[in-house]
Amino acid sequence: MTPKPEASVYKSSFSLPAWGKLLSLANEIRRSSLAQRFEAEGRQRLDYLSREAVGLRADFSKQHLDRPTLDALLELAQQAELGSAIAQLFEGDLVNNTEGRPAHHTALRDQASWSQPALQYVGDCYQRFTDTAEAIRQGQIKGSDGSDVSDVVHIGMGGSDLGPKLVSTALASDAQPIRTHFVANIDPDQLTATLSGLNPAATLFVVCSKSFTTQETLQNALSARQWLQARLAAPEAAAQHFYAITAATAKATEFGIAPAHIFPMWDWVGGRFSLWSAVGFTAAIAIGKAAFADLLQGAHDMDQHFHSSPLAGNLPVLLGLVDVWNSSFLNISSHAVLPYSHRLRQLPNYLQQLFMESNGKGTDRNGEPVAYTTAPILWGEAGTIGQHSFHQLLHQGTANTNCEFVLPLTTGTPLITHHQQLVASCLSQSLVLMQGETQAQATAKLQQQGYSAAQAAELAPHKVIDGNKASTIISFKQLDPHSLGALLALYEHRTYVSSVIWNINAFDQWGVELGKQISNQLQPALRDGLGDDGVDPSTAALVAAYRQANHLQD
Amino acid sequence: MTPKPEASVYKSSFSLPAWGKLLSLANEIRRSSLAQRFEAEGRQRLDYLSREAVGLRADFSKQHLDRPTLDALLELAQQAELGSAIAQLFEGDLVNNTEGRPAHHTALRDQASWSQPALQYVGDCYQRFTDTAEAIRQGQIKGSDGSDVSDVVHIGMGGSDLGPKLVSTALASDAQPIRTHFVANIDPDQLTATLSGLNPAATLFVVCSKSFTTQETLQNALSARQWLQARLAAPEAAAQHFYAITAATAKATEFGIAPAHIFPMWDWVGGRFSLWSAVGFTAAIAIGKAAFADLLQGAHDMDQHFHSSPLAGNLPVLLGLVDVWNSSFLNISSHAVLPYSHRLRQLPNYLQQLFMESNGKGTDRNGEPVAYTTAPILWGEAGTIGQHSFHQLLHQGTANTNCEFVLPLTTGTPLITHHQQLVASCLSQSLVLMQGETQAQATAKLQQQGYSAAQAAELAPHKVIDGNKASTIISFKQLDPHSLGALLALYEHRTYVSSVIWNINAFDQWGVELGKQISNQLQPALRDGLGDDGVDPSTAALVAAYRQANHLQD
Repeated sequence: MTPKPEASVYKSSFSLPAWGKLLSLANEIRRSSLAQRFEAEGRQRLDYLSREAVGLRADFSKQHLDRPTLDALLELAQQAELGSAIAQLFEGDLVNNTEGRPAHHTALRDQASWSQPALQYVGDCYQRFTDTAEAIRQGQIKGSDGSDVSDVVHIGMGGSDLGPKLVSTALASDAQPIRTHFVANIDPDQLTATLSGLNPAATLFVVCSKSFTTQETLQNALSARQWLQARLAAPEAAAQHFYAITAATAKATEFGIAPAHIFPMWDWVGGRFSLWSAVGFTAAIAIGKAAFADLLQGAHDMDQHFHSSPLAGNLPVLLGLVDVWNSSFLNISSHAVLPYSHRLRQLPNYLQQLFMESNGKGTDRNGEPVAYTTAPILWGEAGTIGQHSFHQLLHQGTANTNCEFVLPLTTGTPLITHHQQLVASCLSQSLVLMQGETQAQATAKLQQQGYSAAQAAELAPHKVIDGNKASTIISFKQLDPHSLGALLALYEHRTYVSSVIWNINAFDQWGVELGKQISNQLQPALRDGLGDDGVDPSTAALVAAYRQANHLQD
Repeated sequence: MTPKPEASVYKSSFSLPAWGKLLSLANEIRRSSLAQRFEAEGRQRLDYLSREAVGLRADFSKQHLDRPTLDALLELAQQAELGSAIAQLFEGDLVNNTEGRPAHHTALRDQASWSQPALQYVGDCYQRFTDTAEAIRQGQIKGSDGSDVSDVVHIGMGGSDLGPKLVSTALASDAQPIRTHFVANIDPDQLTATLSGLNPAATLFVVCSKSFTTQETLQNALSARQWLQARLAAPEAAAQHFYAITAATAKATEFGIAPAHIFPMWDWVGGRFSLWSAVGFTAAIAIGKAAFADLLQGAHDMDQHFHSSPLAGNLPVLLGLVDVWNSSFLNISSHAVLPYSHRLRQLPNYLQQLFMESNGKGTDRNGEPVAYTTAPILWGEAGTIGQHSFHQLLHQGTANTNCEFVLPLTTGTPLITHHQQLVASCLSQSLVLMQGETQAQATAKLQQQGYSAAQAAELAPHKVIDGNKASTIISFKQLDPHSLGALLALYEHRTYVSSVIWNINAFDQWGVELGKQISNQLQPALRDGLGDDGVDPSTAALVAAYRQANHLQD
């Protein structure tokens, strides 16, 4: 382990004066509803509870906030030394304290910085992988027998999968020359279904693993290579169809991938922040080099906003503070992300990793258990899909969810009427979450619809919607590479802001290690039977059931 | 509104003697951990906390349960008259009290019952839609110009989408003759992307809407028809490419669909329970008539188990009671469904509607506010995807989640090694959730790995996993139509069981109406500008932003 800063540099958030103040404010805020606040404050409420940066407008006026609360949250940020934490991020300091590493993903999209000798290798890698992506896209790189490439299969997991998949889904056009596919699951059905119907001579594979030891990824890569070798006229040419992105280039070489086909990544890029590195190779194939550069530029523009804006006007800071407020002070443990955009349907999955792997922790940077709740459950679905599924619970259930709507204001299609319905649906959901409907209102409506007074009185209680539910709307003019880059950087920084306030390390993920160890112990048991190694009776019975279902003899 | 039973027939759950007993037991249960219970009880714990029915084995021994708790939950079920509620469901009584309807979806899969004159129409419809599906599949039904059908686009929303999509995704094979596509979102990007690349002459459309007024569905159907009319040699032949499933056959006829192409559904089939009706038409095209019959048989077998088994040995009853226990007594407000099966990756989405639309309610059947928490947030992702994303939070976060693993024990592919890793991953996650890792264990492991004592002491707190987290594993020999039918019926009945204990109506969804009304009011505002109708300033600003982004003048 590399050295880390003295533990004592991290102040316990719970001990900061603003923390106690916010606990009191959380009790007070319950005395007025969101609708009452709007009535009292009118248009002014928007002025201090909405912000635009880099073309993204966040409206958090329907959050349980008032001026004293916002001020106290900003005080908390000051007291937690958020300003210097932001500076440390951009300076490449060892903000990942438990692993003794920087988390310097902002350098990946700061093209100007690559002219510095110390970061020249970043620019070199960027040139190589984007040039190669463009050459594949333009048909200059062929299959081993000279076939035009039609399909690229990206094999990766977690941060080596979710980012490129999100970008490809969000931005790829029907006219793109190369189809991209993503295989992550170790379940063989995913690889098998993906390969079925592909032309081996026209298919390239991109194996993406920072450590080049990710079990799912390596196993899928091995089986993909076998599939290819069995089908190419010259099996030994299979290697020409493989590319790798990894920080362990020696391991990729050992796997049989040519050095010219390997793009590096580095220790200081965390998996869930790696889209901007060569991990984005497949996305660059899908959308092209120029669009990929726009994506990075959008992220860089948000970086500059985050780096240089005062806290009170800093969009990632404000949204990160609202996240802390909802989770730690209002005890809202569910955060639904609802992109009203089919193209952004993967966004909740992407953000699940970003938010829950970064901040799903109960130990602070000093190694002490936290005395407050940290990251909530993040989940979601594209609007309007959820309206016909789980929105019933959002409106009338007993669980309390903070809803976040993500809304591009225009469509790239000519079907304007469809899109107007989509936008109206989004705004109506946010409005209803705030406003609700009283029993008197429901009764009156039912009587207007022709129900008798008695019938209306009986049915109205079932139509009551309490309202007063928190929501945020993030809107922007159009979904394109630049706005998507800015949006993802906004989410990254917002995660970091919350982590600093919560005094946790957003950049490690120690909690996933034990499962891997136990899984490695159980694999021989499934194959050969349980030895004397004691596992609990539930697990033992399932091992036996597996072996019986697969006709394996002890 | 049709008459409903007297409100007084529903006892308040909170007033039942077992409810109070369970509140006490919830305090006691915290005194021992799951691991301690296994140590004390050994293999016996499995005997009373696991059950098999219709080939599905549910192991809920890693739930926070003991014998007194299980007994008290069964007492609660008795006191809530669950047995008669089950009988009422199967008898077609008006269990949907606020709408004065039965919820008789079990009749849809009880083929023997169709010989009764009163249910003959169910059998007639089944014959028609499955015969038509098979004829399309076999190439006997052609496009209007005689082309072979290659693609079917299913247009539906919520319950008219999720079920057939789940079944097609789970069971379709690469060898199926017809590709099926699902369009639900009003966002035009979904329809546009789906139609792109399809051959109009070889494409059929299935429009699925119980009311035939679902805005998203009708708008998508209209645009799909325009697309087809613009591309067919004989535009007037477009109608031959359309099928409809609806309870409003007159409206479908008005839309221009021929009576012979319309399959009925009925008032007594709720959308989220409608897969088994003609709503399953597209699924039947994907998997074939015989497989669709197996699906129904699996569900029917589970129906019989549910209908006739004593409560203490009744799988849907036991799982439904555990759901109530976790939500209302242990305050676990998050329920993650983690199918370790790529084919079942849509299961969480399907269950979101089933669980959250059915039981996401705060008003009981008597019209009184409930005094306890009802349905939790249900979310999830296919394993092993989540392990490299949000499992960090499951193991080390402050939010408490009840995890449910769904595990087919065999693979239909030859890639046995992949599947063993998948199964081992699943079992290891459940084991780690229960067992965790102490600081002493983490320290010892780190020292074995070569860390110095000081380094190990510093890092170990970050590796601590508290454990003692609830999970259930539902395993079965193989994923096929029969096991999938049984699994979905299990979930349906489990939902009903919880609803009876919570004294809520699982079959209405009044909370989604207001959003539709407001959306209809906002659409003209987006098109023509806001009039004097007051909306809150936040919504008004977003309407203005939409109009500006789309260059609409006031």
